[in-house]
Amino acid sequence: MSKAISIFDTTLRDGTQGEGISLSADDKLKIARKLDQLGVHYIEGGIPGSNSKDIEFFKRIQDFNLSAKITAFGSTRRKDSQAEHDANLKSMIQSGAKAATLVGKSWDFHVHTALQTTLEENLAMIYDSIAYLKQNGLEVIFDAEHFFDGYKHNPEYALSVMRKAEEAGADWLVMCDTNGGTMPHEVHDIVTSLVGQASSSRLGIHTHNDCELAVANSLSAVRAGAEQIQGTMNGYGERCGNANLCSIIPNLQLKLGYEVIDPEQIKQLTNTARYISEIANVHMPVNQPYVGTAAFAHKGGIHVSAILRDSRTYEHIAPETVGNRQRVLVSELAGQSNILSKAQEMGIDINPENESTRKVIAKIKDLEHQGYQFEGADASLELLLRQANGELKELFVFESFKMLVEKTAGRPVVSEAFVKLNIDGNSIYTAAEGNGPVNALDNALRKALISYFPRIANIHLSDYKVRVLDEKDATASKVRVLIESRDAENTWSTVGVSGNVIEASWEALVDSLRHALLGQTKREDYEEIPSAARGLVNL
Amino acid sequence: MSKAISIFDTTLRDGTQGEGISLSADDKLKIARKLDQLGVHYIEGGIPGSNSKDIEFFKRIQDFNLSAKITAFGSTRRKDSQAEHDANLKSMIQSGAKAATLVGKSWDFHVHTALQTTLEENLAMIYDSIAYLKQNGLEVIFDAEHFFDGYKHNPEYALSVMRKAEEAGADWLVMCDTNGGTMPHEVHDIVTSLVGQASSSRLGIHTHNDCELAVANSLSAVRAGAEQIQGTMNGYGERCGNANLCSIIPNLQLKLGYEVIDPEQIKQLTNTARYISEIANVHMPVNQPYVGTAAFAHKGGIHVSAILRDSRTYEHIAPETVGNRQRVLVSELAGQSNILSKAQEMGIDINPENESTRKVIAKIKDLEHQGYQFEGADASLELLLRQANGELKELFVFESFKMLVEKTAGRPVVSEAFVKLNIDGNSIYTAAEGNGPVNALDNALRKALISYFPRIANIHLSDYKVRVLDEKDATASKVRVLIESRDAENTWSTVGVSGNVIEASWEALVDSLRHALLGQTKREDYEEIPSAARGLVNL
Repeated sequence: MSKAISIFDTTLRDGTQGEGISLSADDKLKIARKLDQLGVHYIEGGIPGSNSKDIEFFKRIQDFNLSAKITAFGSTRRKDSQAEHDANLKSMIQSGAKAATLVGKSWDFHVHTALQTTLEENLAMIYDSIAYLKQNGLEVIFDAEHFFDGYKHNPEYALSVMRKAEEAGADWLVMCDTNGGTMPHEVHDIVTSLVGQASSSRLGIHTHNDCELAVANSLSAVRAGAEQIQGTMNGYGERCGNANLCSIIPNLQLKLGYEVIDPEQIKQLTNTARYISEIANVHMPVNQPYVGTAAFAHKGGIHVSAILRDSRTYEHIAPETVGNRQRVLVSELAGQSNILSKAQEMGIDINPENESTRKVIAKIKDLEHQGYQFEGADASLELLLRQANGELKELFVFESFKMLVEKTAGRPVVSEAFVKLNIDGNSIYTAAEGNGPVNALDNALRKALISYFPRIANIHLSDYKVRVLDEKDATASKVRVLIESRDAENTWSTVGVSGNVIEASWEALVDSLRHALLGQTKREDYEEIPSAARGLVNL
Repeated sequence: MSKAISIFDTTLRDGTQGEGISLSADDKLKIARKLDQLGVHYIEGGIPGSNSKDIEFFKRIQDFNLSAKITAFGSTRRKDSQAEHDANLKSMIQSGAKAATLVGKSWDFHVHTALQTTLEENLAMIYDSIAYLKQNGLEVIFDAEHFFDGYKHNPEYALSVMRKAEEAGADWLVMCDTNGGTMPHEVHDIVTSLVGQASSSRLGIHTHNDCELAVANSLSAVRAGAEQIQGTMNGYGERCGNANLCSIIPNLQLKLGYEVIDPEQIKQLTNTARYISEIANVHMPVNQPYVGTAAFAHKGGIHVSAILRDSRTYEHIAPETVGNRQRVLVSELAGQSNILSKAQEMGIDINPENESTRKVIAKIKDLEHQGYQFEGADASLELLLRQANGELKELFVFESFKMLVEKTAGRPVVSEAFVKLNIDGNSIYTAAEGNGPVNALDNALRKALISYFPRIANIHLSDYKVRVLDEKDATASKVRVLIESRDAENTWSTVGVSGNVIEASWEALVDSLRHALLGQTKREDYEEIPSAARGLVNL
């Protein structure tokens, strides 16, 4: 039995079938890059035949030079037609992807009910589609939809589908538990029955979590001989989700001794899972295995005193193995080493023995307790650390802002902001309109700063996220704003927290500009600002 | 092999070890009553030796006359002492519970590291404690902590612990995977090895979800011969949680043919799970197997057209079996059939042939194109459909709103809103402050409406989400606001989209109240509003 298992990620395709999950082409590209760094072997990007967003993804991803294979998803040709004339199959070929995931029916009930065709025509549809994709040089992963249900009702037909796919040249035969209703011992028995039959194709497994068994079923298939697992990050997917790769990868590698990704990559697991949940704007359950913030959190007093003696007493692995950390819920004991290693990473020379270092660590912990999250806001963290290290000059003295939104029936909504600052003893008072309140505030702030810091003309905000921190009392609770900014070379993220979304946005906006101007000097020569730059910031 | 499996619920004890979960004695009593109606066999109420809240629970629960056995939790006697003098064991007896769960060590490493005593003394602690509880007439469930880790490191010792517990008269020997790191095939092998050895005691299993395998491990143990499963509702518990009974019960009963609870009781599963998540004030993941709101929700267009032909095509069980229901998510991925089936679900009689129906379908698609997302906003969709069907009266005529946020250095931020409406020819102009801009707007709007619609006093916003739709130009791009509202019985969600976050929030706020007042008539008698209700909305 081979000990190398191939990880096939379908977060960008099957994952987006989950309720509330919607990813733009930009989101998909960001996630693909992150998945590649984690070391997954296949990244299914979408359905090139379905919409322009996916077509854009397949086009732009070609410049990324990823190690992972990008795959395009599609169905077998339509009944009673020819593969060469199938628009869907053609778009898979035109997508530029090196591999194709072709889904076909293997449950006779579905052939009759959903396809409304004969069992023979379904076999021909599978054969023709695979053969056509292979002729065009693609690696073909054949996803046999409802394979387990099909096998239970008509094993002969389910197996004949797989034989036909193999005959047509499929590189992989993937058994799908599409409805998620199969039990682990059934998966084991059915996979075992197929292992003896496939000769040229390799076997894979694709499960859903409707019985809370998707991870177990994937492992069960691998132990029976499957060599590829299809799943999604954080288990996103239709209904109860797909098999969760964030649990499968460490289970295979750390518990069962399979070769999956390298030990340095698996340390990125927690970070990758959280990054993707941020991009998808889906709240990650605190108790998510391996990567959740409570996955290694200890509450009971007896547990805590035991883990302080030896953490193996109540931890099944060392949390650092997957990039997570131990937390003690009653007394916040963790954190300092993380902050110090983060400072080192940023090239900030801080000494843990100094009074100022101890103070900033205490301050960061206090801010985290208030709801700040520095994992997604490195730039704000860097500002705090540099300030503690005496490296930072303040850009301006804040005096006030006002923000007004006004809507009258039948007329467009109007947003205006007014900002009062003091720079080097000069009082500056600006007013600006915007497409929305944060844009108005951003415009008024830039207007106040640009004559002193012309560099900010090249900066724009590339992402803006709001999260309510305490759901009990929604509009009166705290919010966290994360802002991502960009110039020609760099991207950086900042955070603000307040009971008021406008104040939180202001904090994150100010941090964004302070970070952009790290190491910059003021320029008082207003006349030389290029006019193009003025346009950009709505002067 | 017996086909009757005993369900042991520890939501009230191990469940409260989960991060963010805290239950009062009242909460515990409510949950116990609900668990009893569901038909679980044991309800572990807490640790009578630990705090007054648990003592109160054990006292008051005696009047409830439940069918389930109430059990009290505690540890073996302290080392080098006598069971009869152990305060903890005495309080278990005094609690009035008919059964005791006694936890003891079965991993030699823990005996040395955590207990800091000898292997022999640990065996004596187990024997004495069980014998003492049995002498006092209690049924004894012995929880062998870390049994699987213990067995892997020192099988002889782990087995000797179980033999000693059986000798002392334990009714149940429960194998605990305390750290949650054991794989299902290991559970199967280890349980099998014990099954041959126990003669007078019956076997149970207690697992944790650190590898996302707690449900699978429980099933694995049952298939090897265990007859009791310990777990919690919704899988609450320390770190990644305990085995989730909401998945285990239907898996055992509907998939594996065991007798667990009766078919009428299992229809209460969804309702019970949601009730407990409300009491615990923990957000239930939409994709939770069997009981989540998305557990039977369909998004893909092909899936939707297939389930409309036969729901078995993409559902592993009929959702009604566990008291859940099918939902069709309206999204860009799906089409007209989704909208029509959604209307049917809401009891709205629309005819696809009518001009007004074609118009509203076109309008919904256009709104989705603009960034509205109705899959998370059923209530806004319902308003659109009912409006198209001529069922809706407008509550008021909008004239204007203004919203002002002001921050001056050194002083707290201030948010104010002003709302002008016309109801039945009466002009209403209100002003209100709030913790943030949306809260201020919400307060001013409610202030304007409450005298006409006193019912809104009972409504509160329970969640608020903001998503930027086009990240390329963040603060100037469109935002989508999703608002979840709640009253005593129901939860509903609404959506607003605009370039301006305040306008989008206003839209979703207005829809939330419009939906709440569907079918309600105005009440003009202002004087009768209860004063408590006025307080709720900050009048």
